[in-house]
Amino acid sequence: MRTALLQSSGRPGSVAANLRALDASAGRAAAAGAALLVAPEMFLTGYAIGDGVGRLAEPADGDAADAVAETAARHGLAVAYGYPERADDGTVFNSVQLVSADGVRLANYRKTHLFGPFERDHFTPGDRPVVQAELDGLRVGLMICYDVEFPETVRAHALAGTDLLLVPTAQMHPFQFVAESLVPVRAFENQMYIAYVNRVGQEGGFEFVGLSALAAPDGVARARAGRAEELLLGDVDPVLLAASREGNPYLADRRPGLYGSLA
Amino acid sequence: MRTALLQSSGRPGSVAANLRALDASAGRAAAAGAALLVAPEMFLTGYAIGDGVGRLAEPADGDAADAVAETAARHGLAVAYGYPERADDGTVFNSVQLVSADGVRLANYRKTHLFGPFERDHFTPGDRPVVQAELDGLRVGLMICYDVEFPETVRAHALAGTDLLLVPTAQMHPFQFVAESLVPVRAFENQMYIAYVNRVGQEGGFEFVGLSALAAPDGVARARAGRAEELLLGDVDPVLLAASREGNPYLADRRPGLYGSLA
Repeated sequence: MRTALLQSSGRPGSVAANLRALDASAGRAAAAGAALLVAPEMFLTGYAIGDGVGRLAEPADGDAADAVAETAARHGLAVAYGYPERADDGTVFNSVQLVSADGVRLANYRKTHLFGPFERDHFTPGDRPVVQAELDGLRVGLMICYDVEFPETVRAHALAGTDLLLVPTAQMHPFQFVAESLVPVRAFENQMYIAYVNRVGQEGGFEFVGLSALAAPDGVARARAGRAEELLLGDVDPVLLAASREGNPYLADRRPGLYGSLA
Repeated sequence: MRTALLQSSGRPGSVAANLRALDASAGRAAAAGAALLVAPEMFLTGYAIGDGVGRLAEPADGDAADAVAETAARHGLAVAYGYPERADDGTVFNSVQLVSADGVRLANYRKTHLFGPFERDHFTPGDRPVVQAELDGLRVGLMICYDVEFPETVRAHALAGTDLLLVPTAQMHPFQFVAESLVPVRAFENQMYIAYVNRVGQEGGFEFVGLSALAAPDGVARARAGRAEELLLGDVDPVLLAASREGNPYLADRRPGLYGSLA
C-alpha cells in the first residue's frame, strides 16, 4: 500500500488554509498512487498556537472533519490528520483521526503521553492506548509523537496485531535521535511498519526537525525526508512484513510472566 | 567509572586458555584505569561448542569462578563474564557472573530469553528478570544478548534503578542492526549506560559481528569497536547520567495503567 507522508507545518492558526493544503496534497498523493495520506500532529490548526488550541478545537465529527472527509472521498484515498479535539463535555484532547477513501471516519485516537508544559497546560491525556482500523487488508494503528518514545505503547500495538502504525508528530530540536534511530528500532523490535510524519521549521519557540520516515520491520527507513517541506512516498509491503516476522519471532519469544513490573 | 569491554572469542573449547586471556586483559584494563572488565557471552568456554556446553558447565562457585575471582583480586578490578552454569540439580543455564575487585562473587544472572535452536537445545531459561549489584556507587545490572532485544527486559531494569547494564553477547550476522542501532536506543529510552560486549569472527556456523559498544543515556555510543578483537575502553559518567535523566523524564512520564497487555 503506497503511503504519502505530508511533512509540513501548514499555516499555523488558519484551519481554512490547512484544509486547502491537505486537499492539494491529497490530490498529489493520489496521483502518485497513494492509498493513504498522513499529516503531522495538530496539522489542522498548527501546533504552537498557544490558547488558540481551545478556540480552534472541534469535535471529531465537526466541520473540519467533514471537510477532510470530502477531500478523502474526492481524491479516493484515506487521510489521517492531527487536530485538537473538543469532546462533548468540553475537554480538549490532542487527537489524530483516520478517514477512509469513502470519506467515512474510521478511528480517532487521543494522545496518551503528553509532552512538556505546553501540552499539559492545553490538553487532557487520552486513556485508550490502542486504536486501530482496517485499511486495504492492513491493520492500521494510531499514535502521536511522544507516545512512540515509550516502548510499551508500540508493543501494545504489536500485541494487538498492528501492521502499520501512523505517528503524526511535532518533533523538535534537539530530539532528532528519535526520528533518526528510535523510530526504525521500534519498527524492528515490533515487526511492523511505522509512518512517522513531522512538522518542519520554526514555529513559536519550537524548531521542528522534519526527518519524517516510513520505517520497515527490518529497521530500514524505506523513505526518509530531509528538514524541508516534502510529500514523501513509501510502500508498505505485506510480503516483506510476513517474511520479516518469520525471521524475527519477537512476539513468540516474549516471556510476559517476567514483565509484571511494567504494568 | 572506566569500563573495559573485552571484544574477543577467546579459544572456544579451552577454559584454561580463556582464563589466561581474561587475566591478561584484566591486567591491561587495570593499567588503563578501568574498574570493571566485561567479557562476552560464554567467554569462559566458547559459544559454538555443541554438546561441550554440558561437559564444560560449572557451578557459579566452581573452579573457573575461583580463577576469575583470583584474576579480579590480583588486578584490583571487577570482572563480568559469560559461562555455562550447572545448577545443583544438573540444570544448565546460559549465565553471566559479576565478581568484585576483591574477588567476591556479587551477582549471577541466568539468560531469560534463549535464542534459536542451539540455545534451546542446550540451556534452560532463567526465571529472574532483574539481577543487580552495587559497584563504585553505581547500580549495575546483568543481561545476556537476545534479552536486550526485548524492550520489556531493559525497562524492568530501568524501573529497578539500573545505572549501567552489562550485556555480554554473541551477536551474529545478519543482526548487526541490534549492535548499531537498537542498543543505543535502549540506553536512551531507559536513561542508562549499556555495555554491549560481543564475540568476533567465525565460530562453527556463526559469524559474530563485533561492534561492541558503551552506549550512553543520550543515545550516543561513547566507545564503539570494529569487527576485530579489541579491548575497548569507555567511561560511565554519573554527572552526565543525572543530567540526561533530568532532561528526558521517561520514567516519570510513563502511564503504567495503560500497559496491562504487556504482562
